[in-house]
Amino acid sequence: MIETTNPVRGTKDYLPKEMALREKIRAIILNTYEKYGFSQIKTPIIENINLLLGSDGGDNLKLIYKILKRGEKLDLNNVKDENDLVDSGLRYDLTVPLVRFYANNNSKLLPVFKSIQIGDVFRAERPQKGRSRQFCQCDIDIINDASINAEIEVLYVSAMAMLNLGFKNFKIKINDRRILNSIILFAGFKKEEVNDVSISVDKVDKIGLDGVKNELIEKKYNKARVENLVRILEDVKNNGLDTLNKYSVSNNVIDNVKNIISAIKELSNNEFEIEFDINIIRGQGYYTATVFEIYVEGFAGACGGGGRYDEMIEKMINRSVPAVGFSLGFERLFLIISEKNMLKKQTPLLALIYEENDDFKEVIKYANKLQKEYNVNALKRRNNFSYQLTNLKENGYNKYVLFSTKKIETIN
Amino acid sequence: MIETTNPVRGTKDYLPKEMALREKIRAIILNTYEKYGFSQIKTPIIENINLLLGSDGGDNLKLIYKILKRGEKLDLNNVKDENDLVDSGLRYDLTVPLVRFYANNNSKLLPVFKSIQIGDVFRAERPQKGRSRQFCQCDIDIINDASINAEIEVLYVSAMAMLNLGFKNFKIKINDRRILNSIILFAGFKKEEVNDVSISVDKVDKIGLDGVKNELIEKKYNKARVENLVRILEDVKNNGLDTLNKYSVSNNVIDNVKNIISAIKELSNNEFEIEFDINIIRGQGYYTATVFEIYVEGFAGACGGGGRYDEMIEKMINRSVPAVGFSLGFERLFLIISEKNMLKKQTPLLALIYEENDDFKEVIKYANKLQKEYNVNALKRRNNFSYQLTNLKENGYNKYVLFSTKKIETIN
Repeated sequence: MIETTNPVRGTKDYLPKEMALREKIRAIILNTYEKYGFSQIKTPIIENINLLLGSDGGDNLKLIYKILKRGEKLDLNNVKDENDLVDSGLRYDLTVPLVRFYANNNSKLLPVFKSIQIGDVFRAERPQKGRSRQFCQCDIDIINDASINAEIEVLYVSAMAMLNLGFKNFKIKINDRRILNSIILFAGFKKEEVNDVSISVDKVDKIGLDGVKNELIEKKYNKARVENLVRILEDVKNNGLDTLNKYSVSNNVIDNVKNIISAIKELSNNEFEIEFDINIIRGQGYYTATVFEIYVEGFAGACGGGGRYDEMIEKMINRSVPAVGFSLGFERLFLIISEKNMLKKQTPLLALIYEENDDFKEVIKYANKLQKEYNVNALKRRNNFSYQLTNLKENGYNKYVLFSTKKIETIN
Repeated sequence: MIETTNPVRGTKDYLPKEMALREKIRAIILNTYEKYGFSQIKTPIIENINLLLGSDGGDNLKLIYKILKRGEKLDLNNVKDENDLVDSGLRYDLTVPLVRFYANNNSKLLPVFKSIQIGDVFRAERPQKGRSRQFCQCDIDIINDASINAEIEVLYVSAMAMLNLGFKNFKIKINDRRILNSIILFAGFKKEEVNDVSISVDKVDKIGLDGVKNELIEKKYNKARVENLVRILEDVKNNGLDTLNKYSVSNNVIDNVKNIISAIKELSNNEFEIEFDINIIRGQGYYTATVFEIYVEGFAGACGGGGRYDEMIEKMINRSVPAVGFSLGFERLFLIISEKNMLKKQTPLLALIYEENDDFKEVIKYANKLQKEYNVNALKRRNNFSYQLTNLKENGYNKYVLFSTKKIETIN
């Protein structure tokens, strides 16, 4: 006997109703992206452990599932640490595999490559955080376009996907890593401190500006510099892009962000919003310029995000290749759509009820005739027929037909 | 620098053209199954290692990818064998997870549950065998129907999926484990030898009847019994179901197979074939009665298979629940469809070429107008325009339009 029939701790079984909705969301997103000339690719779920550990994935690296070596490669007599035991692991995002994919296949792709990836990633999060350890990501990326057209396109197309899913009140928030970098330097920090300081600033949503201040002081940074930084962040929060000149942020960077915002505003038809937000930073170390997130009214936390990572591909192929990506938070969108009962229209389900003695071949032939309008489930009549109908109703069936009468009835 | 940009040995990157075809195959199969009231479910890719190792998966158990324990659970100082290091693994098929899913969720499902699963499974095959270590399976299963209607339905619906994919000359081969069991006993073997003898007989396709004979003799089975068995297998191969009475095969079993065959023949409209074949055995230990495979003319090896596994669920929930499943070999179908250039019809791709100085917002607005007919990829004009067109053609684009002229042109 098996000790438990539960899925592995922190993972989830999806029931038919959930899967039907997930499938629909997936199709709408995929279809939207394809309409704009993005094309789907797929990489393996397993990647070499050195690729994963060598990527600039921040805290995610601690959450990687590692796969035991096999056969002769596994030497249990010479184990110094766990890295002697593993040679591969499960991907924790779709960006690291994409970069490897591009490095491996770029000669077979268009020079400006617009990719779609929809697939599961794995992170060994503590289950009590309410996150699933296997979850779906939906990424688009434009590789090899250094212009802001790439930002405009990924943001616009992602917003179109949101609109097509039925979302109305959502907002894109945009920032640029170079803005934060300039501000941190302007506040008096050293170049080599910028990354560590950014990591603390990234927590502002959770712990507030005071929290960031305390953390930086605990980290033993000079108090005057920390106070400088907090003051500047407050100023930028209140006064936006126009105040950035004061802090040696380059005009080029400011104009880029302004131009992206104005293009998206014009394309948005007022159906969604976009604004600059100095607090959008994102954890991954690989972002080099613009970063963005998308927020749905009434729901805390981002429903997606991304940014520009111009230096990541170069690390693999010794050639500078700019890139911009956006990842829709599939699981969060699924939860909201499910909760708000959006996307209701689906092919109706019909139960075709036959008796023990009916000729099953004829039942199937009759099912074939009904399939223009319905998905038809042929089921034997059960002894407790009224319970069978109740049960069907609970499972999403609004109608049934008896094979004997061929009359379609509504289940009440 | 990363030492290689290749995917993990034995796995594969899928390029846009391949993924477009895979997506289409997936949609056709899913849609066909849904039309017949099957509903999609999803289980995690990771399962508890005891579930996987305790399943009756035959040789597949040797190919399981095992995941290293994490945190405090991993004690490198007390490692006796590799099982001390792992608590989960990657699924090697979709049947074992389905059974766990059913055991875990049956109160929320219809009493007769018809499931669809389309997902990747993992087997650490030797790469030289030409098999991918991550591959897609497409399973349907009917749980809790002990009648042959379940066999008729999974076979018919799988055949419909094949027809909808454009296959014409294919054949279903059917057998029943109980037939082989009876024959082996009739030949003089002991009850406890049946499984081991079956494993040898299963190799008949690869090594021929002589090979099976030699292997059984090498395994030290009584020569007279081995020769008996081989003679009976030859007789059955030549004379089919009608000769089985001689070998104490129960009439009930013979009639079951006959009735399935005649129902499928009638439903087939002569668009595909079905026949009894004593050589269809299938490796998995969990099959209890009917087993079947599907073959496409001109291609060696099965394109799918399945059978009845009436005892597998009972091992988990202490209640007898019959089940029948069929798994389409997605990867093999993909290869054949790709090779034969089937399923060509797709939304055409259009390249919308703009100049450096064009207003990108206007380019996108124009792209929106073209999307009723095309998937539109907005791309900057490159210096070598004729090479850009050649390259587009190679990537599946037959048409382009210049933003400046708005005239759609064919790429030659």
